[in-house]
Amino acid sequence: MSEKVNEFTSSCPIPIQKYPNVTLAHGGGGKLTHQLIEKMFIPAFKNSLLGAQHDAAVISMDGMKLAFTTDSFVVQPLFFPGGDIGTLAVNGTVNDLAMCGAWPLYLSAGFIIEEGLAMETLWRVVQSMQRSAQAAGVQLVTGDTKVVEKGKGDGIFINTAGIGIVEHEMSIQPKSVRPGDEVLISGDIGRHGIAIMAMRENLSFESQIESDCAPLAGMVQQLVNGGVDIHCLRDLTRGGLASALCEISESAKVQIQLDESRIPVREDVRGACEILGFDPLYVANEGRFALFVPKNDAEKALAILKAHPLGTGAAIVGSVREHASGLVTAKNCIGTTRIVDMLSGEQLPRIC
Amino acid sequence: MSEKVNEFTSSCPIPIQKYPNVTLAHGGGGKLTHQLIEKMFIPAFKNSLLGAQHDAAVISMDGMKLAFTTDSFVVQPLFFPGGDIGTLAVNGTVNDLAMCGAWPLYLSAGFIIEEGLAMETLWRVVQSMQRSAQAAGVQLVTGDTKVVEKGKGDGIFINTAGIGIVEHEMSIQPKSVRPGDEVLISGDIGRHGIAIMAMRENLSFESQIESDCAPLAGMVQQLVNGGVDIHCLRDLTRGGLASALCEISESAKVQIQLDESRIPVREDVRGACEILGFDPLYVANEGRFALFVPKNDAEKALAILKAHPLGTGAAIVGSVREHASGLVTAKNCIGTTRIVDMLSGEQLPRIC
Repeated sequence: MSEKVNEFTSSCPIPIQKYPNVTLAHGGGGKLTHQLIEKMFIPAFKNSLLGAQHDAAVISMDGMKLAFTTDSFVVQPLFFPGGDIGTLAVNGTVNDLAMCGAWPLYLSAGFIIEEGLAMETLWRVVQSMQRSAQAAGVQLVTGDTKVVEKGKGDGIFINTAGIGIVEHEMSIQPKSVRPGDEVLISGDIGRHGIAIMAMRENLSFESQIESDCAPLAGMVQQLVNGGVDIHCLRDLTRGGLASALCEISESAKVQIQLDESRIPVREDVRGACEILGFDPLYVANEGRFALFVPKNDAEKALAILKAHPLGTGAAIVGSVREHASGLVTAKNCIGTTRIVDMLSGEQLPRIC
Repeated sequence: MSEKVNEFTSSCPIPIQKYPNVTLAHGGGGKLTHQLIEKMFIPAFKNSLLGAQHDAAVISMDGMKLAFTTDSFVVQPLFFPGGDIGTLAVNGTVNDLAMCGAWPLYLSAGFIIEEGLAMETLWRVVQSMQRSAQAAGVQLVTGDTKVVEKGKGDGIFINTAGIGIVEHEMSIQPKSVRPGDEVLISGDIGRHGIAIMAMRENLSFESQIESDCAPLAGMVQQLVNGGVDIHCLRDLTRGGLASALCEISESAKVQIQLDESRIPVREDVRGACEILGFDPLYVANEGRFALFVPKNDAEKALAILKAHPLGTGAAIVGSVREHASGLVTAKNCIGTTRIVDMLSGEQLPRIC
């Protein structure tokens, strides 16, 4: 064993000159997170499953295909309009499984609690996890609790890992995206990020903006049952629609052309984004996903999404072309096209 | 859905008068952790898998038996003699799977990093996880990274979840322990806790005491292959041997009688315990487990353990009798018997 271990270099693969310390942006889902994954984690833990860089790993065991994923949740504030850290912790992992076309079955929960957290707060979070698990049809079967000294944590952090089963033959992943595919999204974007931001900054708008946090597996199952040839699914969390599409275009080596006028953004969310200086394309969502299907299946997929209570706002928002290295562009309402880049730096930390 | 949700009470099940806030002891692996699990988590997430209260949940899927578990690691200091948070994070979860008699296969890793952590520190931890994963024969296939603001975390917390496969027909769990069983432990106890404590308090002893942190799945596999009829396995982490046995005796409704003179404790560890006022029975280990087998299999099991490099110090340390509610007793070298209770309060926080 010791020889193999020494095969890989022991000098830090992240440019230490530039990033001697971990910054908030390394956890923001944008360029620096990407660098950390590409340069440190994937080479260190080298294996084909991790290399797929999907929301979950799909493992073949004894003829069965299992999806396995994990996510930690550090959102602040713990409670916000439309959800809380408990709903996020369940739906986030359920959705990562769903994005592989897996049906979510079992979750684990690891709590890291800061000493002094009100017991009632823990209880509210646990109840909300229970309700979310029930709504998503998953069982929470194993867990762990750690407590750290006051000032060494922040209320409560929750990790969930999840196991799902893949019962179809499609290879749903970024690399399956093809020129000619159409891009759909399952509803209006930007609500989760704005809900958190408004709460944190004590902003109030005419209407309350609620997080879109929701379990997406049911909708995906409808697409599978409806015979849609799904090439790729991706939930639009940290880094928003823009970062998700940039990752996919890079992985599949294609150009994704968005038609901005077709991307649904609620008026109040658009207004809040203008006030706060955010681009809705980069704002986090917790109940929205992008879907890549062959052109011929796009209308069928759209109809299935629209028939689901969580997908009434679904839309076809772009298409895929050939490109050597990967590119995302967006055409605005006056016909100008801009390049959409991955989130650089950290727009809004502790969003999930 | 909403009707079902309302079925379970919304008032906090932990006596709020007594514990209005979460304390360090709620994460210590002793009585209060037990109360949290028994009164809050199990009733809330009610299902038979969680109810088994084992180190991992064993799930039947399509004729295959999978073990699934999770653990978060918050140890301070991050690096200590004999290991670091990375070795712990891999071995801890590998061992929880092994304690169900499962062969560990896949791990997830969730990092919660405090802004400002030296990039080199992260790299050291990642390398150490890679080496430990390789040594234990598991693949790290999915992960997540979050960064929290300076002062809202403590360097790095790591959650790992794991999947293993159970390839035998034994039902290895606390409830399988029977009167007449013998109790073995796989080696000397107390080293991990004392190694951490010595480092934290800047104590030095004549010899350096190193953590016993190690992967236990290989040894368990030898027992399975050797045809030992394993009734129960339990690694002796937070709360030590005493708390592990108390939990098992309560669950199986039996009396576990320990013979203290047969419990191996290194001289330097015993000395350190005396200085620090610790009872070695309650000190955490990260590479030791207790094993319950029928009397007829005890010598065979002992021989198998002793033949393994990690089990050379194994010993038969007690036996199991009938008891209505569950009890652990220890007979000392002069023949006096005392009752061994579960760890009450918090002996040493942030041990794993």
